[in-house]
Amino acid sequence: MIITTQINQQRLWRTIHELGKIGAGSNDAEGVTRLALSLEDLEARQYIIELMEESGLDVRVDVVGNIIGKLEGKDKFAPVVMTGSHVDTVYQGGLFDGALGVLGAIEAVRSIKESGIELSHSIEVVSFTDEEGTRFGTGYIGSKAMTGYLDQATLQLKDANGITYQEAFKQAGFDSKQYKQAIRKPEELKAYLEMHIEQGKVLEEHELAVGVVTNIQGPVWLEVTLNGYPDHAGATPMNMRKDASLAMAEVMLEVERISTTYQGVGTVGKIHVEPGGVNVIPGRAVFSIDLRHGDKELRTKMMEEVTTAVKKIGEQREIGAEIDMKKAVDPAICSESIVHILEESCDELDIPTMKLPCGAGHDSLMMTKVTEMGMIFVRSKDGISHNPKEWTDQEDCVIGTQVLLQALVKLAK
Amino acid sequence: MIITTQINQQRLWRTIHELGKIGAGSNDAEGVTRLALSLEDLEARQYIIELMEESGLDVRVDVVGNIIGKLEGKDKFAPVVMTGSHVDTVYQGGLFDGALGVLGAIEAVRSIKESGIELSHSIEVVSFTDEEGTRFGTGYIGSKAMTGYLDQATLQLKDANGITYQEAFKQAGFDSKQYKQAIRKPEELKAYLEMHIEQGKVLEEHELAVGVVTNIQGPVWLEVTLNGYPDHAGATPMNMRKDASLAMAEVMLEVERISTTYQGVGTVGKIHVEPGGVNVIPGRAVFSIDLRHGDKELRTKMMEEVTTAVKKIGEQREIGAEIDMKKAVDPAICSESIVHILEESCDELDIPTMKLPCGAGHDSLMMTKVTEMGMIFVRSKDGISHNPKEWTDQEDCVIGTQVLLQALVKLAK
Repeated sequence: MIITTQINQQRLWRTIHELGKIGAGSNDAEGVTRLALSLEDLEARQYIIELMEESGLDVRVDVVGNIIGKLEGKDKFAPVVMTGSHVDTVYQGGLFDGALGVLGAIEAVRSIKESGIELSHSIEVVSFTDEEGTRFGTGYIGSKAMTGYLDQATLQLKDANGITYQEAFKQAGFDSKQYKQAIRKPEELKAYLEMHIEQGKVLEEHELAVGVVTNIQGPVWLEVTLNGYPDHAGATPMNMRKDASLAMAEVMLEVERISTTYQGVGTVGKIHVEPGGVNVIPGRAVFSIDLRHGDKELRTKMMEEVTTAVKKIGEQREIGAEIDMKKAVDPAICSESIVHILEESCDELDIPTMKLPCGAGHDSLMMTKVTEMGMIFVRSKDGISHNPKEWTDQEDCVIGTQVLLQALVKLAK
Repeated sequence: MIITTQINQQRLWRTIHELGKIGAGSNDAEGVTRLALSLEDLEARQYIIELMEESGLDVRVDVVGNIIGKLEGKDKFAPVVMTGSHVDTVYQGGLFDGALGVLGAIEAVRSIKESGIELSHSIEVVSFTDEEGTRFGTGYIGSKAMTGYLDQATLQLKDANGITYQEAFKQAGFDSKQYKQAIRKPEELKAYLEMHIEQGKVLEEHELAVGVVTNIQGPVWLEVTLNGYPDHAGATPMNMRKDASLAMAEVMLEVERISTTYQGVGTVGKIHVEPGGVNVIPGRAVFSIDLRHGDKELRTKMMEEVTTAVKKIGEQREIGAEIDMKKAVDPAICSESIVHILEESCDELDIPTMKLPCGAGHDSLMMTKVTEMGMIFVRSKDGISHNPKEWTDQEDCVIGTQVLLQALVKLAK
C-alpha cells in the first residue's frame, strides 16, 4: 500500500466556486456560460493559469490554447502522466462539468508537491480548449489537436456570428495555423486520467460517490426523414393514409427494443413533424437517432438493425425513408491496467466503488488514440448536467479527487 | 322531372379566379391567405357583396358580418332555403375551400333568376364569417352566431397580436356586441344546403365528380401532455429512462388501432417534444389527438379507449399523463329527404354519384342545429386542401353547381 497525502478539501471547494463565478449569469441567463474562446472562457483560462502557478506547476499554453501545468518528476525523460479536463461550458451549464476534472487535478498535484512525495514520472495537468463544441458545433478541439486529429476544415467552421474557428483563435491570441505543433507523440505519454461528473444516475442509484469507467460509448447520430402525404385528418379513411409520424412512432419503439437487446442505449431526442396542424395528417417527419455502445462492432449491429427497421416500416406503410449519418465517434475502451489501479486506489482508501460504462463523450475519447486512458466518475445529483441545476456534493468532489491523487501517485511513482 | 336551366360555366370559373386573386401571395407566401376579418378578407367580402348585387340578389350583412343575398320567392312568408359557405381561408390556402360553395351558390341562384324559374320559397345565399378559425383558434363563427351558439367568451379570444375577436370585429366595422341579432329561428328556415370540395380522395378513387354527404364526423380534439425526465442520452441505461416520447409513440399507434377498429378516423398531427436535443432523452411530449366518427356514441367509445390507453401506457412507463379536451363538435346526420333530393337531382342530370361521410367540419355542422341540412361534395385533386395545391377541375365545379341548382329548385319550388 502506497502512503499518500490528504488533499485540501476547503481549497478544492473554494476553487470550484471561484471558477464557477466566471461566466455565471452572463447575458442575464441562469447558470454558467463560458463558450469556447469567449471573453468568459479567456477569463477562466487566466484563472487556471494563475492557480497552476500558485500551485507550483510549470505552466505553458500550446498553439490551440491547451493549458498545461507540469510537476516535474525525477526522470525528465520518462513518459508523462497526464490528467485534466476542460473549463469551457455549454450555454447555461453548471459548476462541475469539466471544471471538477481540471481543479481536482490541480488540487491533487498541488497536494502531492506540498507533501514532498517523490515521483519518477512528471505529471501534467491539462485544461483542454473547447471540449463542449457548443459554439462551432464540434468539440474535443484541444484533445484533437494534441492527438493529431484536428484539421483545416474544422478551423474553417463558423459560429452563429459568422466568425471562423481560426479567427476566434486569433482574437484570443492563439496561432491555430500552427495547430500541428500541439501534437504529442505516444512515446511522450504514459497515461491520461480524467475525473468527471457522471452526468447520469447510476452511481446515485447505487449510493456510491465514485465509479471506475470501463469504456466510453461513442455516439452515432442518424437523421431519419420520412415522407408520407399530408391529407386532411377528417376526410381521409385510415386505410388511405400515408402518415409519416405513425411510421416514426414504430421506428422509435424499434430503437428502444434494439438498444435494450444489445445492452446499448438509443434515443430519439429531436422530432419535427410537418405540417403540424391538429387536423392534418403528418406528411413528413424528421427525427434524430443517437445510438451508443461500448463495443464498436455491436454498435454497428445496432445501427444495421435500426436501418433495416426503418426501411421495413417505410415499405409496409408506403412511406419514403432516408437515413443520413450525421456523426460517428468510435467508442473507446479504458486501459485495463488503469481500471485496476483505480479499483486498487479506492480499495486502499476504503472507498466503495463500481465499474460502469460512460455514455457521454469526453477528451479522453481522443486521448485514447495516443495513450492508455482511464476515467473516474463522480456522482451527479439526479444525473443532471449541462444545466444550472448540475450538482455534486463537496464530499463527493473530495472523494473523487482523493482517488485521483492516489492513482496519479501509483502511475507516476 | 323538373326542367331547370344550365349554369354559366365561364362565369363561375371566372369568379373563382377573381376571388382567388384576393389574398394571393400576400406576405410573399404561396397560395391564398384571407384570415378572418383581415384586410384581404374584407376585400373578398366586398367582392361577394358586389357579385351578389350584380346577380340581382337583395344583399344584407348581419352584425357578425355574414353576407346574405336573397332571391325572393312568391311566398314571402314561407321558410327560406339557405345555401352557401365561407370566403375566409387558412394561412396559405387554395382557391376552392369555401369559395366554391359561395360562388357556386351565387351562380346557381343567378341562373335561376335569369331563366325566370318561379319559386315559392325564397333562396338566401350566405357567406359566413370565419369558418376556418385560423386567426383566433376557433371557427364557425358566423354560423354559430346565426344558430345562437356564439358566446361572449369566444369574442374575448385573442389573435397572435393580442387583438380580441370583438376588437377585430369593430375594426372591420361590425358591432359584434349585438351578436344575438344574427340569430335565425328554426321556423324561418326550410333547409341549408352546402356545396364544398371533398378535401379527401374518396371521390377521386371512385372516379366521380360529385358525392352526396350522409353525415359529418364532428371532431374531438384532445391535447395530451406526457411528463418524463430529460436525462442524458448517453449516460442513462435503457431501464432507468422516463422517455416521454416513447410513451407518445405507443399512444400514437393505439390511436391508429382504435380508430381503425371503430371505422372512425384518428390523427396525431401536432407534436412537440422537449427539450429537443439529439443527445437528451425527451422529458416532455405534448401532442394533439383528433378523433372523428359519424356516430357520436361510437366516437365517445373511441375517446374512452384512447384515454384508457394513455393512462395505461403512462403507468407502465412511469410517465405522468394529462389529457385536456380542447374541442368537441357533435357529429351531424344529413337530412334524409335532402340526401334523397340530391340523389334524385344527380339522377335527373345523368350524373353518377355516391354517398359518403364528411370528415371535415363545416358551417353545415352548426346549421343542422336549426334546420334540415345537406351537403354536396365535389372531387378534390389528390384530396389536397388547406394548401396552395388545392385543386378542383372546372368541369367538376360546373357539375357540382348544376346539381346544387337542381336541388335548390326542388327545395324551393
